[in-house]
Amino acid sequence: MKRIKCTLSYDGTDFSGYQKQPNKRTVQGEIERVLQTIHKGKVVTIHASGRTDTNVHAYGQVIHFDTSLSIPEEKWSKALNALLPNDVFIRDSKQVEESFHARYDTVGKEYRYRIQHLGERDLFKRKYALFFPYSLNIELMNQAASTLIGTHDFSSFCASNTDVINKVRTIDTISLCEDQDELVFTFRGNGFLYNMVRIIVGTLLEVGQERLKPEEVKEILEACDRRKAGKTAPGHGLYLWEVFY
Amino acid sequence: MKRIKCTLSYDGTDFSGYQKQPNKRTVQGEIERVLQTIHKGKVVTIHASGRTDTNVHAYGQVIHFDTSLSIPEEKWSKALNALLPNDVFIRDSKQVEESFHARYDTVGKEYRYRIQHLGERDLFKRKYALFFPYSLNIELMNQAASTLIGTHDFSSFCASNTDVINKVRTIDTISLCEDQDELVFTFRGNGFLYNMVRIIVGTLLEVGQERLKPEEVKEILEACDRRKAGKTAPGHGLYLWEVFY
Repeated sequence: MKRIKCTLSYDGTDFSGYQKQPNKRTVQGEIERVLQTIHKGKVVTIHASGRTDTNVHAYGQVIHFDTSLSIPEEKWSKALNALLPNDVFIRDSKQVEESFHARYDTVGKEYRYRIQHLGERDLFKRKYALFFPYSLNIELMNQAASTLIGTHDFSSFCASNTDVINKVRTIDTISLCEDQDELVFTFRGNGFLYNMVRIIVGTLLEVGQERLKPEEVKEILEACDRRKAGKTAPGHGLYLWEVFY
Repeated sequence: MKRIKCTLSYDGTDFSGYQKQPNKRTVQGEIERVLQTIHKGKVVTIHASGRTDTNVHAYGQVIHFDTSLSIPEEKWSKALNALLPNDVFIRDSKQVEESFHARYDTVGKEYRYRIQHLGERDLFKRKYALFFPYSLNIELMNQAASTLIGTHDFSSFCASNTDVINKVRTIDTISLCEDQDELVFTFRGNGFLYNMVRIIVGTLLEVGQERLKPEEVKEILEACDRRKAGKTAPGHGLYLWEVFY
């Protein structure tokens, strides 16, 4: 048996998220279906760094699977891409140690969130960036973001329907970058709770509109209460950008 | 009766082109359906600057229609957008003279063609730019493009299944611009024949790959024979960018 690690992109628009579900089109479902074909009917289970929700995109999701086939490591991406639908793309494949695990070995992740905040609505971005045509005070957003950097209990920024008990995570970076008509958030940290990036974005947008002060974001964090934070920003602006091992 | 002129964008991916056809989803069909609703069942015909094919996008298509309703000119865009599907977007609406005609009054058009020619395949551009990961000699392409500038019989660059008799057109500009991983062509001229931009792009790509010399493009033009030119580039890289009056 060989363990193969793949880095992949997908367009989340037409998937019911990453994780396999009966009678739904999912990223895991599509890849496992193709692997089963390549393995002549044998079921092959894949393991990802984590799930992504409906409409959420990935530029650098990571998965692994085990195979007894003798396909050279770098050919796996071609073999899979030849059979996968065109909204999933295997960017890279290589053989890893049998002890490697795409989920348990992660040491950090980068997410990005794209917001089209300038100009008229760009039709071609409707599935790929949140359209938010309101004036935003970027300086205040940066101040608020800086209060979230570090190791904290992020209960206020975690969807309430989760069974994770330990909600302490470390955020290393939250950067806001203006790129033409877009504002792009980059988040890096050792791990992110369910909906955490989207709730932080929703809260920072409140700060940007001066409906919430940067100091209040610190209070929200300390309250450890989801109800204090802002709305969950929509999924279609979010990208799992990179997974670190 | 008032005549309303609208500038609109659409994502051509899920349309069977601009022009209305029975049992097919078309841009004209969608807009006329919405206008009929707004006019309480009365059929309203729209006129566009010209058609676009399946998968071809528009950033600045122009249409006009007549109405007896008293909606202020600038409110038409909101009224239409509220009812249109999200792959059509009315960017602007205004009242024009009753003698204005979206098709007959055009004095020129700008088309753009996007090619992703650098880096790995960008999944998010698969419907919006041609992926063409081959080395291209841009200087030779520019030389070849310059031989097409001016007033010529463009029969060699026109789909053979057309009933247009006069194939003389004037191209004012063909520019090639490198933008990150893309090469973007801009074409401006007084009018373009059926598939003309796509056939020119297909031919210039042959030049870029050094399979055809710039001088040979001049010979192709002079031959007035569609079979001499290159392949028709796919529709999904093409945008009707602006219509001039």
